[in-house]
Amino acid sequence: MDQRAEKLNRPGVPALDEILGVPFEVLDDGLIRVIDYMGDDQAIVQAARVSYGEGTKKTSDDRGLIRYLLRHRHTTPFEMCSLKLHIRVPMDAWRQWIRHRTASTNETSTRYSIAIDSSQTTAPDQWRVQAIDNKQGSDGWLDSKTGVELTQAETDFKNTARQVYNQRLEFGVAREQARKDLPLCTYTEAYWKMDLHNLLHFLALRMDPHAQKEIRDYATIIGREIVARWVPLAWEAFEDYRMGSVSYSRIEHKIMAAIGTGDMEDAMRIATDAGWLKPAKKGGFIRNRERDELTTKLKTLNLKVPWE
Amino acid sequence: MDQRAEKLNRPGVPALDEILGVPFEVLDDGLIRVIDYMGDDQAIVQAARVSYGEGTKKTSDDRGLIRYLLRHRHTTPFEMCSLKLHIRVPMDAWRQWIRHRTASTNETSTRYSIAIDSSQTTAPDQWRVQAIDNKQGSDGWLDSKTGVELTQAETDFKNTARQVYNQRLEFGVAREQARKDLPLCTYTEAYWKMDLHNLLHFLALRMDPHAQKEIRDYATIIGREIVARWVPLAWEAFEDYRMGSVSYSRIEHKIMAAIGTGDMEDAMRIATDAGWLKPAKKGGFIRNRERDELTTKLKTLNLKVPWE
Amino acid sequence: MDQRAEKLNRPGVPALDEILGVPFEVLDDGLIRVIDYMGDDQAIVQAARVSYGEGTKKTSDDRGLIRYLLRHRHTTPFEMCSLKLHIRVPMDAWRQWIRHRTASTNETSTRYSIAIDSSQTTAPDQWRVQAIDNKQGSDGWLDSKTGVELTQAETDFKNTARQVYNQRLEFGVAREQARKDLPLCTYTEAYWKMDLHNLLHFLALRMDPHAQKEIRDYATIIGREIVARWVPLAWEAFEDYRMGSVSYSRIEHKIMAAIGTGDMEDAMRIATDAGWLKPAKKGGFIRNRERDELTTKLKTLNLKVPWE
Amino acid sequence: MDQRAEKLNRPGVPALDEILGVPFEVLDDGLIRVIDYMGDDQAIVQAARVSYGEGTKKTSDDRGLIRYLLRHRHTTPFEMCSLKLHIRVPMDAWRQWIRHRTASTNETSTRYSIAIDSSQTTAPDQWRVQAIDNKQGSDGWLDSKTGVELTQAETDFKNTARQVYNQRLEFGVAREQARKDLPLCTYTEAYWKMDLHNLLHFLALRMDPHAQKEIRDYATIIGREIVARWVPLAWEAFEDYRMGSVSYSRIEHKIMAAIGTGDMEDAMRIATDAGWLKPAKKGGFIRNRERDELTTKLKTLNLKVPWE
Repeated sequence: MDQRAEKLNRPGVPALDEILGVPFEVLDDGLIRVIDYMGDDQAIVQAARVSYGEGTKKTSDDRGLIRYLLRHRHTTPFEMCSLKLHIRVPMDAWRQWIRHRTASTNETSTRYSIAIDSSQTTAPDQWRVQAIDNKQGSDGWLDSKTGVELTQAETDFKNTARQVYNQRLEFGVAREQARKDLPLCTYTEAYWKMDLHNLLHFLALRMDPHAQKEIRDYATIIGREIVARWVPLAWEAFEDYRMGSVSYSRIEHKIMAAIGTGDMEDAMRIATDAGWLKPAKKGGFIRNRERDELTTKLKTLNLKVPWE
Repeated sequence: MDQRAEKLNRPGVPALDEILGVPFEVLDDGLIRVIDYMGDDQAIVQAARVSYGEGTKKTSDDRGLIRYLLRHRHTTPFEMCSLKLHIRVPMDAWRQWIRHRTASTNETSTRYSIAIDSSQTTAPDQWRVQAIDNKQGSDGWLDSKTGVELTQAETDFKNTARQVYNQRLEFGVAREQARKDLPLCTYTEAYWKMDLHNLLHFLALRMDPHAQKEIRDYATIIGREIVARWVPLAWEAFEDYRMGSVSYSRIEHKIMAAIGTGDMEDAMRIATDAGWLKPAKKGGFIRNRERDELTTKLKTLNLKVPWE
Repeated sequence: MDQRAEKLNRPGVPALDEILGVPFEVLDDGLIRVIDYMGDDQAIVQAARVSYGEGTKKTSDDRGLIRYLLRHRHTTPFEMCSLKLHIRVPMDAWRQWIRHRTASTNETSTRYSIAIDSSQTTAPDQWRVQAIDNKQGSDGWLDSKTGVELTQAETDFKNTARQVYNQRLEFGVAREQARKDLPLCTYTEAYWKMDLHNLLHFLALRMDPHAQKEIRDYATIIGREIVARWVPLAWEAFEDYRMGSVSYSRIEHKIMAAIGTGDMEDAMRIATDAGWLKPAKKGGFIRNRERDELTTKLKTLNLKVPWE
Repeated sequence: MDQRAEKLNRPGVPALDEILGVPFEVLDDGLIRVIDYMGDDQAIVQAARVSYGEGTKKTSDDRGLIRYLLRHRHTTPFEMCSLKLHIRVPMDAWRQWIRHRTASTNETSTRYSIAIDSSQTTAPDQWRVQAIDNKQGSDGWLDSKTGVELTQAETDFKNTARQVYNQRLEFGVAREQARKDLPLCTYTEAYWKMDLHNLLHFLALRMDPHAQKEIRDYATIIGREIVARWVPLAWEAFEDYRMGSVSYSRIEHKIMAAIGTGDMEDAMRIATDAGWLKPAKKGGFIRNRERDELTTKLKTLNLKVPWE
């Protein structure tokens, strides 16, 4: 690798330059704007070639190389790209967001400044029902009559919250203390910077259907509108190999191999050895979460389920 | 370093074992409990000796070595100790806490569970006045008549907030959405684990008088009640070399050296070259923050201030 | 979660306490010793229950919960455990080891101390042949006659290297400079501390058959001899869900679902759309790495390969 | 902060663009090249203003704000800038370099590729003498006659090392094993990316006179030639407030304050209480490292040393 004589031009991505600073609207009063970025698909390829040498050098193979890197969970070449966003987001979504420790963040301080006079509001048709199966999630919407009532209560409450905050400021209470009863969904703003490897991990978790709707809305825009423009080859590979991928455990894989040969008895034996087929008193088997997960997967693959 | 034959006993700190699991109370309804720890003063010494070799081996020098390491900002030996805490803390203090990215954290999820039915309350004599000089801080207390009024408004507001939350749950709203208007100071709980190097950094920032009172209360207990018991030599060194230390810039140091010789003209010249002594229209100098900071320091040292 | 009154005993793992400090031998002159640890299987469960609440509290479910956490790639509960090792390892294996940035490390300094007088040696039957398929790996052993010659040359070279180093020290050259020509496989020693989540990631990469044999030897002992004793439930789950798991991409999964229904034409169409079946001039298809990988997987599962 | 309508142009630094890709030569065969960067002085200011609000907005104050941030050890605004370098560096300097865990790195693999056929050589007048006072450092140069002898031995040794490596490759030994006896100072290459906050920390440690000369040569070029061009205001502040700063412990500060009032007895009392003035048998005091360090500082400040 003798690149010593080579004067470089700074890499840029015209498709991303076009939207630099332009806000994407999210929720009722949120936004995402790209402030700056470093690198592009080519920068991923270039870093991989430093590591893995000349053999990877045919230009025609850039897409193949990026797909290979992502498929085999190589990480450092993707760290060579970074993205800086300006976001405006309700604090309760931000509480989830900030759990990703690999970002650099500057958030508006409500010790220094008066809190943003806006909090996320819920339209009557947007109240979500607690899911039964999934303890952490929601499932469908409440009826509109109930929705109207809840939204009215929400509006009244927000007005009260704002009055309480303003009264404190008027009485001279320190901003750091006055804010203590602001609703969790009060908007905050931040600059947020992350490298592409960690950003893809963030998106895999936060675009997932199990993620809370609010942060999923943000993640989906970051992924589909921003990352897809910025590093289209990496994004395509990510959709194929991460978002759309399915993993099988050692036991699951063994059972599938038995099903593949048509040997259902063998499949049953492996499941029994794994403790998945304990008989229930009233017939059938005791509920087993691992068995249930494989049942679902086998049905998706149109394969026969040995224990059904 | 041939330690091959040596069977070890696990290091333990009896003074810390005694308080394992026992809650320290913080604020009106918060707590801190030590859940577990790894290492002790001796573990710091031992790690340093792996790096710096035999020369550091006299037992009598353990204290001196730890002081040396901390004074010269060595970091990795302090990383060899870790502390795991259980904390109960208002979410708005937690928002500051979680910004320290080098911790491992498991926080109670209000998607899975119903939110804790407690939020931090303010006694009438605890309302703090916005500081003028320090935009981010507070300075003194509001009078008690105002305090009574504010506390009453706070109580009423919290009741309303709780009703709004409970109404949503009764109507079947998903927990992840119902919580959206909880007050910021609603208590949350977490397990929080950090190594000693990063913990001392956390304490240096959060025990500082500029830190917000609420998180300072937690940090002070962690430092004085827990870390001081756990690693007493490291804690003593930390108080001497970090909490109590003062730093002088290159320019400040040059000016002090000039003052040391009594050459006030030279001191003035250095300050002028640094742009600190621009004349104001109405006499004296234009305000300069760097000059002001040195003025304060010189007075603490009982040294003459050249420009006064 | 009201655990306020509860005095705790410090968690310990007798099976690990037994081997604390006792060296495992690795390579010709390397070692691994456990120095200390924090947490156990129970600590993982306990941290998860802080996050996910009461629903996870039945003791009988500890194993199921740990398996669930690992299967669904939850990370923070595993961060609550830490392991501290003393290792003696050739610098060229250490160069790979130190790339894992989430560890705390104190390595013997050859600036402070004279370098260890030992470097890894190769027996005549241990010289490995360069692999053809796998550019980064090895494949089989050289014949013994060649091995004898190579080992003799290695021995002679090491003697020379040692003479060069010693001569420099005798002439008064600074240790930091004298060491510059030591062979890469000179042994070094370090204390190395990592949390369990990151340790499992380290082991997944370094116990993998693609990892270099030397570091794989270390990783295998850490995994099978140490982690398996320390957190047996987590280790079992790791073997099932990480070491033994297989991942299928979105495209692979679609093709498998088509095969499941027996619709081979559909399977071929999906592969064609993905660009996997470009015709070669001399018949058959152009080589395609993604297609080849699925071919291998399908054969393992005893499923029909549509394009063969 | 309503920046919603604002289309941005991507920030760039013409002074850095000019040298993009152009190698700086280091040591006998090393190099540093800037590959890409993100942000500039203005980006630091901008991020700080998100946090600290409108009060910081006068353009004339950019320099003052950056100096304030660096003086008070604010970190996140500096994380908003990143630098990506291509370096060619001897492996033994790289072993120190890679200890900085906050970088993203892609290093040339000598498993995939044949090792670089170059290692760092030492001219006869460049052999450094082991320092007595400073166990880790060097102090002056060996005489030229000895230097000639050492350089000749070095040259011979390198030839032998190369022959050994080449013989192994010819015999078909796997590259991953053939490299095991390469000299530590064999050159390697890497892409290396770090944010400005962590880069300044790296430079503070590695430009320090106590750092080993080889890595100091690299760090000095990165600092003086690259960072100084890229973010000139941050660099100036760094030189004033970090490189040139001196820190005083709590005890040191108390003693200095006593000296400031001229009360030498008080100064002696504080030092005695700190255990710095234990009488030696043969008169004077027992050696005390903390006292010695303050003695040096007081002399630099032209202040009287109470115990001399």
